[in-house]
Amino acid sequence: MSKNNKNPVLVSIIGGSGYTGAELIRLISKHSYFQLNQVVANRNAGKKIKDIFPHLRHLKLPDFISFEQMNFDNVDLIFCALPHSKSQEIIVKIPKGKKIIDLSADFRLERIEEYERWYGSKHIAYSLQEEAVYGLTEIYKEEIKNGSLIACTGCNSAATLYPVLPLLSKGVIKGDNLTINIGAGVSGAGRDAKQNIIHAEVSEGIKPYNIGKHRHIAELEQEFKKATDNKIGITFIPHLLPQNRGVLVSIPLASPASIVHKTLKNFYKNAPFIIVLPIEEIPATQHVRGSNFCHIGVVSDHNKDRSVVISVLDNLIKGSAGQAIQNANIMFDFDETSGLLESPIFP
Amino acid sequence: MSKNNKNPVLVSIIGGSGYTGAELIRLISKHSYFQLNQVVANRNAGKKIKDIFPHLRHLKLPDFISFEQMNFDNVDLIFCALPHSKSQEIIVKIPKGKKIIDLSADFRLERIEEYERWYGSKHIAYSLQEEAVYGLTEIYKEEIKNGSLIACTGCNSAATLYPVLPLLSKGVIKGDNLTINIGAGVSGAGRDAKQNIIHAEVSEGIKPYNIGKHRHIAELEQEFKKATDNKIGITFIPHLLPQNRGVLVSIPLASPASIVHKTLKNFYKNAPFIIVLPIEEIPATQHVRGSNFCHIGVVSDHNKDRSVVISVLDNLIKGSAGQAIQNANIMFDFDETSGLLESPIFP
Amino acid sequence: MSKNNKNPVLVSIIGGSGYTGAELIRLISKHSYFQLNQVVANRNAGKKIKDIFPHLRHLKLPDFISFEQMNFDNVDLIFCALPHSKSQEIIVKIPKGKKIIDLSADFRLERIEEYERWYGSKHIAYSLQEEAVYGLTEIYKEEIKNGSLIACTGCNSAATLYPVLPLLSKGVIKGDNLTINIGAGVSGAGRDAKQNIIHAEVSEGIKPYNIGKHRHIAELEQEFKKATDNKIGITFIPHLLPQNRGVLVSIPLASPASIVHKTLKNFYKNAPFIIVLPIEEIPATQHVRGSNFCHIGVVSDHNKDRSVVISVLDNLIKGSAGQAIQNANIMFDFDETSGLLESPIFP
Amino acid sequence: MSKNNKNPVLVSIIGGSGYTGAELIRLISKHSYFQLNQVVANRNAGKKIKDIFPHLRHLKLPDFISFEQMNFDNVDLIFCALPHSKSQEIIVKIPKGKKIIDLSADFRLERIEEYERWYGSKHIAYSLQEEAVYGLTEIYKEEIKNGSLIACTGCNSAATLYPVLPLLSKGVIKGDNLTINIGAGVSGAGRDAKQNIIHAEVSEGIKPYNIGKHRHIAELEQEFKKATDNKIGITFIPHLLPQNRGVLVSIPLASPASIVHKTLKNFYKNAPFIIVLPIEEIPATQHVRGSNFCHIGVVSDHNKDRSVVISVLDNLIKGSAGQAIQNANIMFDFDETSGLLESPIFP
Repeated sequence: MSKNNKNPVLVSIIGGSGYTGAELIRLISKHSYFQLNQVVANRNAGKKIKDIFPHLRHLKLPDFISFEQMNFDNVDLIFCALPHSKSQEIIVKIPKGKKIIDLSADFRLERIEEYERWYGSKHIAYSLQEEAVYGLTEIYKEEIKNGSLIACTGCNSAATLYPVLPLLSKGVIKGDNLTINIGAGVSGAGRDAKQNIIHAEVSEGIKPYNIGKHRHIAELEQEFKKATDNKIGITFIPHLLPQNRGVLVSIPLASPASIVHKTLKNFYKNAPFIIVLPIEEIPATQHVRGSNFCHIGVVSDHNKDRSVVISVLDNLIKGSAGQAIQNANIMFDFDETSGLLESPIFP
Repeated sequence: MSKNNKNPVLVSIIGGSGYTGAELIRLISKHSYFQLNQVVANRNAGKKIKDIFPHLRHLKLPDFISFEQMNFDNVDLIFCALPHSKSQEIIVKIPKGKKIIDLSADFRLERIEEYERWYGSKHIAYSLQEEAVYGLTEIYKEEIKNGSLIACTGCNSAATLYPVLPLLSKGVIKGDNLTINIGAGVSGAGRDAKQNIIHAEVSEGIKPYNIGKHRHIAELEQEFKKATDNKIGITFIPHLLPQNRGVLVSIPLASPASIVHKTLKNFYKNAPFIIVLPIEEIPATQHVRGSNFCHIGVVSDHNKDRSVVISVLDNLIKGSAGQAIQNANIMFDFDETSGLLESPIFP
Repeated sequence: MSKNNKNPVLVSIIGGSGYTGAELIRLISKHSYFQLNQVVANRNAGKKIKDIFPHLRHLKLPDFISFEQMNFDNVDLIFCALPHSKSQEIIVKIPKGKKIIDLSADFRLERIEEYERWYGSKHIAYSLQEEAVYGLTEIYKEEIKNGSLIACTGCNSAATLYPVLPLLSKGVIKGDNLTINIGAGVSGAGRDAKQNIIHAEVSEGIKPYNIGKHRHIAELEQEFKKATDNKIGITFIPHLLPQNRGVLVSIPLASPASIVHKTLKNFYKNAPFIIVLPIEEIPATQHVRGSNFCHIGVVSDHNKDRSVVISVLDNLIKGSAGQAIQNANIMFDFDETSGLLESPIFP
Repeated sequence: MSKNNKNPVLVSIIGGSGYTGAELIRLISKHSYFQLNQVVANRNAGKKIKDIFPHLRHLKLPDFISFEQMNFDNVDLIFCALPHSKSQEIIVKIPKGKKIIDLSADFRLERIEEYERWYGSKHIAYSLQEEAVYGLTEIYKEEIKNGSLIACTGCNSAATLYPVLPLLSKGVIKGDNLTINIGAGVSGAGRDAKQNIIHAEVSEGIKPYNIGKHRHIAELEQEFKKATDNKIGITFIPHLLPQNRGVLVSIPLASPASIVHKTLKNFYKNAPFIIVLPIEEIPATQHVRGSNFCHIGVVSDHNKDRSVVISVLDNLIKGSAGQAIQNANIMFDFDETSGLLESPIFP
């Protein structure tokens, strides 16, 4: 259907009991053109959504069902919010012809060798990869519009690619020696209990993790190489922060702030959610929390030939569920901002 | 105007650079029937709102002006979000005939002696007190509808009065020996820098404050006395918590959970924002953060003749800016939920 | 041995990989008279302590061993920091004649029916209960001195009993209608991964838990009844706080602050770790963090016939590992402050 | 005096009511050879220390006095913990012959032009600069031993210099293109109330600050240039974190982890507080909190020719008060670890 039709798009979610699932439910429930009719969560099948997410108790929502109980006749669009490797297992079982938006990592990497290298397991649905579109909305809008399987990006990847891709493709920076410093909120690690994310381990401190091993490196290298013919060399340094939401990326650049700022400002002049701040203004994750906005700041270094670019977004929204819905809006020819214009919650 | 008219209600805010002001701006900016045309902030007059609140930078908003610059011809409704005592100074200067919703404490107390006792200063606009309506929405809906000056409640007061008033008025509890335990997020202390609210003082610990002196006691005693002819005796124990938003009230009751629950469930059956949880379910401030909802839980004590009632709300929304807008909706005959149905942001 | 002898007391810990175990290791490692020679942690047997607790990597420590590997010839004193029910299973296997300090709940309740009622399982080592001493140091110092099995208290219980017991036993308050409000840091829930204690669930909010069911109620009732012949009636309201360490208890009292303060001040005048603040001064958990001190404050209510007593302590130290070591000091006739006089870490 | 003498070193603190002052008081109070006899805090003169720092209430301490009240006859060693520019004003007034350890920035920069460029004000005590020793303990131990005025380093500087200086001086890395990523706890901003450090602004988010302007850049450039003849080019990216204590530095290096690790391990093999972790192990600020330890980790990048070095320390201790005391130990020929061996507090 399109926005001119009367009937809403019928939407189902597979993987509804994680944080990303909860955000999909929340955002879809207030969307003017989407109607949520099924939410799959195998472990919680039969339970009410409000029993797992009490913050959604005021909404009229269907109960969780198992994947086996899902009725595909009644679905135009499926959001799949499962962990990687689990996602491919499920997606191969979905009848052909359904629009699918996958929030896992399973269809992000175009080359199967890269998937198997970084994820350490065989890909069982590689035949679907060919039709997959990397879901970085503002860059791949046309492909998303015509796509049937969208592979939403990693949250850190989105925050990194937004400032870097335009600079690479316009030749403002070379990509052979990029340091990508990441600060990541703990909700990115999901809702399953693991010792390293309990409050007493995370709060009141900062800890780097997965240096040299973070799987988002693979996405970044793939996309950087599409943006430039030059050699790519990146060092990716992720840090786990004592906060729930938010990704911050800070990248030192061997170009003056003025050129960097002008390039980004121009590139995103029509992008409703990517806001390039006035030059020398510094963004903060606090200012995008709970929203689909990405703020990008460009600041001069004390050596004025150099600068630092910083981008921030809410990992669960612009980095995940909001990105997915923005992509869905584009696929179904709605305004891309539909259901996504809520302001950040501060403080 | 009413919801049947074409023209939006023209709204101004006085006191727009605190946290409550920011929430008023955010909520009004997405309201279908209200149009924000002036925001007064004397200290920031001439600045852009986004310079003070970067999280609102995507919105089209007027710049801050001073009170002297305000044009009253162009205003149907004024929200006043100033500190107490400052508020009365300003409100007496507003031309007659404007609808005013005051978020300060200045017009909450009906008896001037009580104001002067608890706030320690003379009231300079006491003549206006007579027309003031205490803004506890669900309790004073009729009075608010016909009011011209609404005195919104303290955030702790709202969280306390919601569970207690029905129990008192229905005789389920006596009020002569009530312990009101409060946990309050730090945003309730405002945005002005004070040593006791800097991060290093507040985080990683809990500290009671203002025991025996908290000014919300005066509101509570006033409202409790209206609800019952019995003697009122309360002990009010507020604690400052290491969190930004949220008020929690927990009150032990000398009545069984079943009766308490039934009374509250029945009392709020038509209140869209006051949700009485299933009996024995415990609420949390995390589940109302960023929303206008108040969750109330009733839980049995190990002595089954006794129970505990708990209520939670977001101090900046249901405890302040959202309450104000809900009251405004009622004054202007809109649906009381207009602009206020956003789900909480969790986690 | 005694402090006049040359040889250190040989100490072993069973259950060394939880937070309490880590605190025991840390505190014993700097104790002048105790020497840590074995640390049992079955799941981590064979690992180095610094692999589980990197913050202790500068210390020379034995590796973790299994219980089966433990050599009892070489032990004067055993700290047992296992979960309840697991503790009794292990303690029955320890050769007779060893001094044991148990930090679990297994030997706190004198009446087996109470244990089985509150803990929901059979007690398999009830014969040992007779020799167990409840480890509330300042109250049972003589019994501890002569004891062989010390059952350290719950952290909430210690924080509650310190202010309440003297008031009950001196008749300053009656115990028939006591509200005990608790704020508890999340480290009290241990280090095992559970969804309800991950950072994203706990931070930025407050949530009551186990109302009417908290097992520390049983300890409190037991000890209150020893302190007074009057009827005991308590309502216990625990809240989980977004902080790692610290227990706060606030209790409204139907007695004036002056009498309460004088009673407590006098009672604890020789207790090195229980500090009664000047009257009307309010304590905070931030001010005892990382130390063995308990601060108690007495504040007048606005009704001057009433008051509020507040006590704060670090749940892992005075509420657990520090309490255990203080008890050990007493058992071995050392100064009770040995190894425990570190100041709190603030901020 | 020396450690062989009987009399303690008489110590005074000027600037005792900030966080650094509190840590000096805490650490000196348990030091075996130092005796604290005067604490200057002009604004709080006449008050008890426990009124400003309730966490130190168990200690016997002198009351705060004003600088004018200070008796210099009775002082061997002065710690000066004032803000920059204020510190030089006071230090010029101290009688000659006293050992002074300054924790401000006033005597860190050898070239007056650099001071005036970065601090934006005239230096009024530049004649003292010549005798000042930069207080980076492990590097300048000999100079500190013979010094009379020690200029302790910035907290970020210490955390940066520890890993970088050995690598530069041994030629393992070049310094012409170094990215220094900093995560800094909020206590580094001091205890004076400022809006940008109140809890509601800082918590639940990360914000870069002072990019291109941070004054610690000047110290770093000065020290880097002493370590190498090569050109120095650094980009310094500090981030304010939602935590009280801790500085983390992460730096990408164009050298393999094995060489970096070996160089650092060897360099610090006799340094009691600088612990180089096993290769590929990642440090966290949580593991040094409350201690004088600095943990350094070296981790391979996914490109194995490159690596990342990470160092963490407690900004108030190893980055400030602990560093100062370690320097004092060296000046007075005590073991450098005296009074500083407390383990970190985790969690």
